[in-house]
Amino acid sequence: MPRKNAFYAQSGGVTAVINATACGVIETARQQRTHIGKVYAGRNGIIGALREELIDTSKESTAAIRNLLSTPAGAFGSCRHKLKSLEQNRAEYERLIAVFKAHNIGYFFYNGGGDSADTCLKVAQLSQTLGYPLQAIHIPKTIDNDLPLTDNCPGFGSVAKYVAISTREAAMDVASMCETSTKVFILEVMGRHAGWIAGAAGLAAEREGDAPHLILFPEIAFERKKFMARVQRAVKRHGYCVIVASEGAQYKDGTFLAESGLKDAFGHSQLGGLAPQLAQMIQTELGYKYHWAVADYLQRAARHIASQTDVDQAYALGKAAIEFALQGDNAIMPCIVRGKGKRYTWSIGKAPLDAVANREKMMPRNYITRDGFGITQAARDYFAPLIVGEAYPDYRKGLPQYVRLKNVALPKKLKKRFQL
Amino acid sequence: MPRKNAFYAQSGGVTAVINATACGVIETARQQRTHIGKVYAGRNGIIGALREELIDTSKESTAAIRNLLSTPAGAFGSCRHKLKSLEQNRAEYERLIAVFKAHNIGYFFYNGGGDSADTCLKVAQLSQTLGYPLQAIHIPKTIDNDLPLTDNCPGFGSVAKYVAISTREAAMDVASMCETSTKVFILEVMGRHAGWIAGAAGLAAEREGDAPHLILFPEIAFERKKFMARVQRAVKRHGYCVIVASEGAQYKDGTFLAESGLKDAFGHSQLGGLAPQLAQMIQTELGYKYHWAVADYLQRAARHIASQTDVDQAYALGKAAIEFALQGDNAIMPCIVRGKGKRYTWSIGKAPLDAVANREKMMPRNYITRDGFGITQAARDYFAPLIVGEAYPDYRKGLPQYVRLKNVALPKKLKKRFQL
Repeated sequence: MPRKNAFYAQSGGVTAVINATACGVIETARQQRTHIGKVYAGRNGIIGALREELIDTSKESTAAIRNLLSTPAGAFGSCRHKLKSLEQNRAEYERLIAVFKAHNIGYFFYNGGGDSADTCLKVAQLSQTLGYPLQAIHIPKTIDNDLPLTDNCPGFGSVAKYVAISTREAAMDVASMCETSTKVFILEVMGRHAGWIAGAAGLAAEREGDAPHLILFPEIAFERKKFMARVQRAVKRHGYCVIVASEGAQYKDGTFLAESGLKDAFGHSQLGGLAPQLAQMIQTELGYKYHWAVADYLQRAARHIASQTDVDQAYALGKAAIEFALQGDNAIMPCIVRGKGKRYTWSIGKAPLDAVANREKMMPRNYITRDGFGITQAARDYFAPLIVGEAYPDYRKGLPQYVRLKNVALPKKLKKRFQL
Repeated sequence: MPRKNAFYAQSGGVTAVINATACGVIETARQQRTHIGKVYAGRNGIIGALREELIDTSKESTAAIRNLLSTPAGAFGSCRHKLKSLEQNRAEYERLIAVFKAHNIGYFFYNGGGDSADTCLKVAQLSQTLGYPLQAIHIPKTIDNDLPLTDNCPGFGSVAKYVAISTREAAMDVASMCETSTKVFILEVMGRHAGWIAGAAGLAAEREGDAPHLILFPEIAFERKKFMARVQRAVKRHGYCVIVASEGAQYKDGTFLAESGLKDAFGHSQLGGLAPQLAQMIQTELGYKYHWAVADYLQRAARHIASQTDVDQAYALGKAAIEFALQGDNAIMPCIVRGKGKRYTWSIGKAPLDAVANREKMMPRNYITRDGFGITQAARDYFAPLIVGEAYPDYRKGLPQYVRLKNVALPKKLKKRFQL
């Protein structure tokens, strides 16, 4: 069997551990040199394939690839370019196949969320239609934790850990001074449609009365009056109120509390600024002194406090992707399967891509308390193991040492340029 | 010599390491039982003394006191209550002395910034006037790093580390996706009048072109046109632009870019929301897609990534305060003295309080590049050693284990209540 090369691309918002998956893919492929050729990475994700801008990862040292395990963000670049349907833009799919053919690529590893699962499936389908032998495998990644069929998504555990720790720390700050100063603190976190990240902040609380006192989920319609009553109650009972608000918090009619009016390439509204809006609302209605923080990219890039469990799983999924490919799998996604015992265990499973693409997994209603402002024991049991372990990076002069790859370009073979 | 008790209070905004100072004070006092009695802490800072709400720290276990070393925020509570001048409010000072007298307190340790240095000095002066023997010692603490006569202030090194790491991490995220997504990222950090914190973010950059590309200091008047030109240049050269903005960034006339209209108990304007304002400005003028983060309390509470140097110095200052007191010192502040050698060394010195109170130390102009948007080598040499070492706390189930003291109240002895 002639050895085929592999193409690997990172898609969508990057995470603290997506490079750990890249590390798993590349290290495992290197161990299987007799079966698989080189791993080419897309520069800036899938558009790297469309533009024939491929990175030859074989030019990177063993140490550099190993260091991907502890480096956040996307080492090869990522993008949010969504391939349209086959009918709407067959040319893009055909271009992908042409580039793959030119570089003898027989494996397509796409590392992303729901949108890229969909793209990956379409590429698998078209390669069959065109009679080009290609195995397309989607590797899950999203801090949003909203992919179906996997117990959790790499990237989420580390954000969850960061958010829970930050909530605990900031709440201690507020508690120290609430007698004469700030009474209300709001931390805005990511999560457009699903409240997984905001929910994980609930882990910060260990005893009755601990922060966060209120969590705002996108899944629960925001009711101003009810919310204000709860803020006031927390301040009266505990002296202060800590609120963790999902950026996707919305009114009953689906309007986000914090629409900025901008949309990204996928047509999603760009959110942000919910925290200052809530703070203003509380100030006007209750008169409390407030502070607010918006973690934004800090939360998903915080490799300095990544979850060891998350790093391990991210790596294992990259490794499994190569192994499944070499076993002949196509149009699948390796996934995390949670063991049934009381003690947390996990293993790698396999999900068919057509069951993954374009389906969002919301927080189950029984993970949210009846009043809509907190998490239940079921949610705690789900979240808790995902943040276990501190995967500290190496430091030099007080700063984490993150690797920068050489990212050497593979010479182009196609004459045609492709207009995106 | 009859043993006198000590009073210790935390003042102003808390930090990741103010409890390390408390640990130094209490552990050292416990080792000197033959010379010093109990350490009483003010509940919620100095107002705890005024209200005669004293905490008996002798009720805490050795382990609990040791855990203060790795616990952020203010273990006994803090406040921003500023004592007015002796002429304006002599009653408050007299009340303090009355409480001290009632509880046989001969040592006053006040752990705070510039305002509390001033209060501490006045208490020292009044106790002399009233003939009440009291040694008043100020222990420096402020993330703002703006106290004179000490090389640096405990709390600052840890914020500096947090901000430099966060800048590096978020910048990697932006760089990964700038080809098709966010071009400008703004991180708003604390620092009302002095740009120390924003400046420390400059450590994130190691090579030419690294983020942060622009830093906004309160010391440099903001010029919109010049700023916009630099943002555009960074995006054109590097593909993206990371800006670290001090909350105290201001126009030439002294107006803050982000006045919220609120004032705190010291009459300082409450700031916040600069990042979204800058983002809007950039969007309107240059049309770049942006993201922004406001670290707020997260930065000063981030004990999970505290600087070991900072923790060591915070502890040493607490220890020195007790030692100086037992040597008979009064109206002084132990301070950090930087060694003259090339390799960083530090020791504890002693500064007279009247030279400390009410003086703010700004970033020297030669720490800021000529164009006003970056830091010089002199600044790097100053900042770099302060963030060295990672003083990780202990973790349980993925979360840092911070101590909660029992904070047992000392029975009151005075009949009179005091109206604040």
